[in-house]
Order: sequence, then structure tokens, then C-alpha cells
Amino acid sequence: MHDSHESFGPAYLQARISSEFPLAKHIGITVTRADDAGLELSAPLGPNANFKGTAFGGSLFSIAVLTGWAWLTRYLDARRIAADAVIQESTIRYLLPVHGDLKATLEAPTAAAIEKFAKMMQRSGRGRLRLNVDIRQGAVLATQFEGTFAAARRASAEE
Amino acid sequence: MHDSHESFGPAYLQARISSEFPLAKHIGITVTRADDAGLELSAPLGPNANFKGTAFGGSLFSIAVLTGWAWLTRYLDARRIAADAVIQESTIRYLLPVHGDLKATLEAPTAAAIEKFAKMMQRSGRGRLRLNVDIRQGAVLATQFEGTFAAARRASAEE
Repeated sequence: MHDSHESFGPAYLQARISSEFPLAKHIGITVTRADDAGLELSAPLGPNANFKGTAFGGSLFSIAVLTGWAWLTRYLDARRIAADAVIQESTIRYLLPVHGDLKATLEAPTAAAIEKFAKMMQRSGRGRLRLNVDIRQGAVLATQFEGTFAAARRASAEE
Repeated sequence: MHDSHESFGPAYLQARISSEFPLAKHIGITVTRADDAGLELSAPLGPNANFKGTAFGGSLFSIAVLTGWAWLTRYLDARRIAADAVIQESTIRYLLPVHGDLKATLEAPTAAAIEKFAKMMQRSGRGRLRLNVDIRQGAVLATQFEGTFAAARRASAEE
């Protein structure tokens, strides 16, 4: 957490998420890793447990969608692209119950996918990108999230 | 909210959700309708708003998945089937931003789909059912959720 604002590391994304998504505080989301290779967000089981003592599906979805949002926001901000990221559609698969803390990881998309997105943004001020987020328990994949995120240049930046 | 426990109406499902999903309190979920034709759950925009003043995708997913869970739980409880409902997989489409309170509605599946599920439960103690939940703003569909829910008889009930 000793990154500067300019590195767009964990502290930067933590501040963005905390100020922009009030519910993230109740889920207890912490940005535990943020670099060019990918991202990791964590949350304690406690506030997200359901009656069976496993993680609520809505909490698992929320941490996964925020991981994707954070990755795309970091990509845009680091390149000074004045655009907002939003989720358009996603599929989530609950393979195994999560009995411990929630850990969501995202590996950066392929260079080809990122380049395609960058070109869409340059040409039209809009772009779409598919991002995958995994939630693991130890080495075992428990929840699989695939989301299509969209970015659009802010109107004020076009003037 | 003047239904008795036996009617498995809004008050019954509200109590189930509040005691079994701590996060539902932070989302502000209220069961506003529960009868044989379907269900409606509501939540205020306030705690679920993101930085744009529209509903956070994780909150929309959470209210939708709880609407599906509540429908299946009501179905099982009303028939004295000692089984728990869980979400297995789902797809959500964010068609339009939600600028006001969140309202999630579920219409009961077709009689044929329900009968198929009931037979699976009778034969094997397990069943799967696809449930659709819509979130509308006035008459306009804003968010579309499709989920596959599973039910399994509790171990203690098999003894």
C-alpha cells in the first residue's frame, strides 16, 4: 500500500472503489494487488456469509465485477483516457461453495484484445472488453466470472 | 405485510432473507409481493448508487439472485420439502442504467417446468430450475437476469 497515486496501484484503486461504490465498504473490499499483470481484490467472509456459512452469491458477483471495473479503470486512468467503465453483461458460475475469505483475481487480457479495445477507443471514443475473474480457495477454482465491460469517453472531455 | 407465517407471503420471506443474508440489510431489500403468481423485491437507490448516481451492478445482481432464491425457497417451504436452494450459474444483462429505486420481479415458471423440477426432487432429492428476474424502471426493462438454481434435500431430512 505504499504506491504513489501515479503508480495506479492498490491504494489508488482502493480510494476509487471506496468513494464510488458505497456498498463495497459493507462487503469489506480491499485491493490487495494491482499491477500491469493483473489485479487481486479481497474481502472477509464474515459480512458476506450466508446462512450456511459460505459466501453469498451476490457478494461473489460484486467482488468479481469490481475487480473487472478496477482493471479497466486502471487501464484508462494510467493512459489519461477520460472515460468511465461500466459492466454491460456477465455470466457467473458457482462451481464450489467458498468457506473462507473472498479472493478475486484477474489476469490482464491478451495484448491483441487490449490493442483492439484501444483502437475502438481511439476511433469512436467507445470500446468493449471481455474480462475474466476467478475466485479461488487455495488452488481450487470456486467461482468463474466473465464480463463484458464498456468504456465511453466522458462528454466533458469531448468539448 | 399482514400475512401469517403459513401463507409464505412477504413477511415470511423478509424474515428468511434478513436472517440468512446479512448483506441484504445493507442493500435495503424489502419483499414487496409474494404469491403463487410471482415475487417482487425492492431496495432504495441510496445505498446502492454508484458514482454516477445509478444502481451498482453488484446490487442489481444481488437483488435479482435473492428474488430467485426467495421464489424457490417459498416453493419448497410451502410444500414442506426440507431442501435448501442455491444459485448455480447465471447471466445478467445491463440494458439501461437504473436511476431510481430497485424493483426486481419474477413471474412463476411454466407449469411444465415446475412439474419437471418437482419430479427431479421426488426421484433424487435434487432438482434444478431456471428462473428469470426482470428489473424495470416504470414499464421499461433495465436489467435482465437468468439464473439456474439448484435444490438439495437436507441430509438430516433423509434419515
